Amino acid sequence: MTRRAMLARGGGVTVWRQIAEAMEADIVGGGLPPGSRMPTEAALSERFGVNRHTVRQALKSLVEKGLVRVTQGSGTYVEAKPLTYPIGARTRFSEIVLGQAREPAGRLIGHRIGGATIAMADALGLSPEDPVVVIDSAHFADRVPISWAIIAFPLPRFAGVPEVYAATGSISAALAACGVPDYRRATTHVGAAIADATDVERLEVAAGRPILVVESLNVDRDGVPIQWARSHFSADRVRITVGS
Amino acid sequence: MTRRAMLARGGGVTVWRQIAEAMEADIVGGGLPPGSRMPTEAALSERFGVNRHTVRQALKSLVEKGLVRVTQGSGTYVEAKPLTYPIGARTRFSEIVLGQAREPAGRLIGHRIGGATIAMADALGLSPEDPVVVIDSAHFADRVPISWAIIAFPLPRFAGVPEVYAATGSISAALAACGVPDYRRATTHVGAAIADATDVERLEVAAGRPILVVESLNVDRDGVPIQWARSHFSADRVRITVGS
Repeated sequence: MTRRAMLARGGGVTVWRQIAEAMEADIVGGGLPPGSRMPTEAALSERFGVNRHTVRQALKSLVEKGLVRVTQGSGTYVEAKPLTYPIGARTRFSEIVLGQAREPAGRLIGHRIGGATIAMADALGLSPEDPVVVIDSAHFADRVPISWAIIAFPLPRFAGVPEVYAATGSISAALAACGVPDYRRATTHVGAAIADATDVERLEVAAGRPILVVESLNVDRDGVPIQWARSHFSADRVRITVGS
Repeated sequence: MTRRAMLARGGGVTVWRQIAEAMEADIVGGGLPPGSRMPTEAALSERFGVNRHTVRQALKSLVEKGLVRVTQGSGTYVEAKPLTYPIGARTRFSEIVLGQAREPAGRLIGHRIGGATIAMADALGLSPEDPVVVIDSAHFADRVPISWAIIAFPLPRFAGVPEVYAATGSISAALAACGVPDYRRATTHVGAAIADATDVERLEVAAGRPILVVESLNVDRDGVPIQWARSHFSADRVRITVGS
C-alpha cells in the first residue's frame, strides 16, 4: 500500500496535516535523518498525490515546529542534532563547533563606533557613553546559522577588531591582533525569548520559535573586561551545558 | 487633560490597543511598579471610558507580552523584576529566592514509583527501568510561580522523599531525611521552549511565552548521583547566571 493511498480524504484531519504527520514520522523515525535535505515540493506533490500548495502548507507546519529549516535558494533541511554548547572559563565558539565535527564560521554584518549603552558600560566597567566599538555578527556551523550577536569592545584598545574579524571570522584572532593572546569567560546570563523578525531573518527560524538570549563578559589574563556580548541562539539548534 | 480625552477614536489604532499602550507606558515608566496590582477592570473601564470587553482585550495583550500576570481569583499583577538564578556547585532554590528578599515555597503536585526513563537512567548512572521515585512539583517566590519540575531519585535510597517534600516543600530537607546532609550540582543543561498548556496552567503565563528548560544532576559528597530534574522556568521571571 502506498502512502498516497493512505491519505484519508474527507476525514476529520485536513490533507496537509496528514502529509505533515507522515513527514514528521519519517523525521522522528530516522527515515529522514538529521541534516538531510527534504524531497522537493514537486517530489512530495507526486508522492502524496496533492498540489504544491498543500505540500507547502505541510512544510510550513514543520518549520513552525522547528523540525526543518528553509534556506533561501537551497532547499529544506531536517534540523541537525542540537550542538552542545559548554559554558565555562574557556568558551570559544570555533572550538566548540570543531569539537563536534562541524565547520565553524563567523560573518561581520556591520560595526559602529559610539558610546557604550548602560548594559555594556556596567559589564565592561566603563561609564555610559564611553567609547566602544560594536560589531554585529552571525555565527554558523556547517553553514547553518547558530547565533547572531552584538559584541562591544572598549576603545581605543580594540579599534582593530572589525577589520580582523571581517577577514578571519574569528573573535580570538581579532583579540590576538589587539594584543590579547588569551582570555576567559567571567560571567554569563541566560534568558529566553520568542523569535522576532531579526531572529527569523538571521537564524532562518520561524517566527515564534524559542531563542536563547546569552549575555557574556570576557576578561583578559589580568581580569580586565575586554568584551561584552548579547547573543541570540536558536534554541532548536543549541543546548547550553554548565559543569562537567 | 485626562487620559480618557486622549483616546483617538476613529484613528488608525484600535481603542484597546491605545489603552494597552497607555498601561504599558505606566508599567515601563514606573507608574505601575513591578509586583503591584493592576487596577480592576471596572476602574480601568471608568478611567478610559470604554466597556469591560475592551479593557479585557487590552489586559490580554499585556499578558501575551509577559508584562502582567493574571492570578485566578486574585487579580492582575505587574510582573516583578526577574529573579537572578545562579547555577554553580551550590544551587538551592530556597537560598536563591531568600537571598533576593522573596519567600520561597515548594508544592508537591504528585509522585509515582516506577522505572527510570532513558534520560533519568543516563544521568543517574542507572539502567532504564531501574526503580526510581519521581516527584512532580511547583516552586514559588512570594506566591508567584517560578518553575515546575519532574524530579527523579533512585530507589530504595530515596523512598522517603515524597512524604518529607509534601510536608516541608524543601528538596534539601527531603534529601537530609534520606541521609544526604549535603549535595552539589554536577551538570546543568539549559534549553528554551514555548509555553504549552501545562506551562500555562502551572506558571500562569500566556501560551507562547518563552520557557527555560533546565536539566540538572545533583550528586552527594561522594560524587554519587542522587537527583535528576527537568525544570520549566518562566523566562519572564528568571534569568540564569553562570560565573561570579
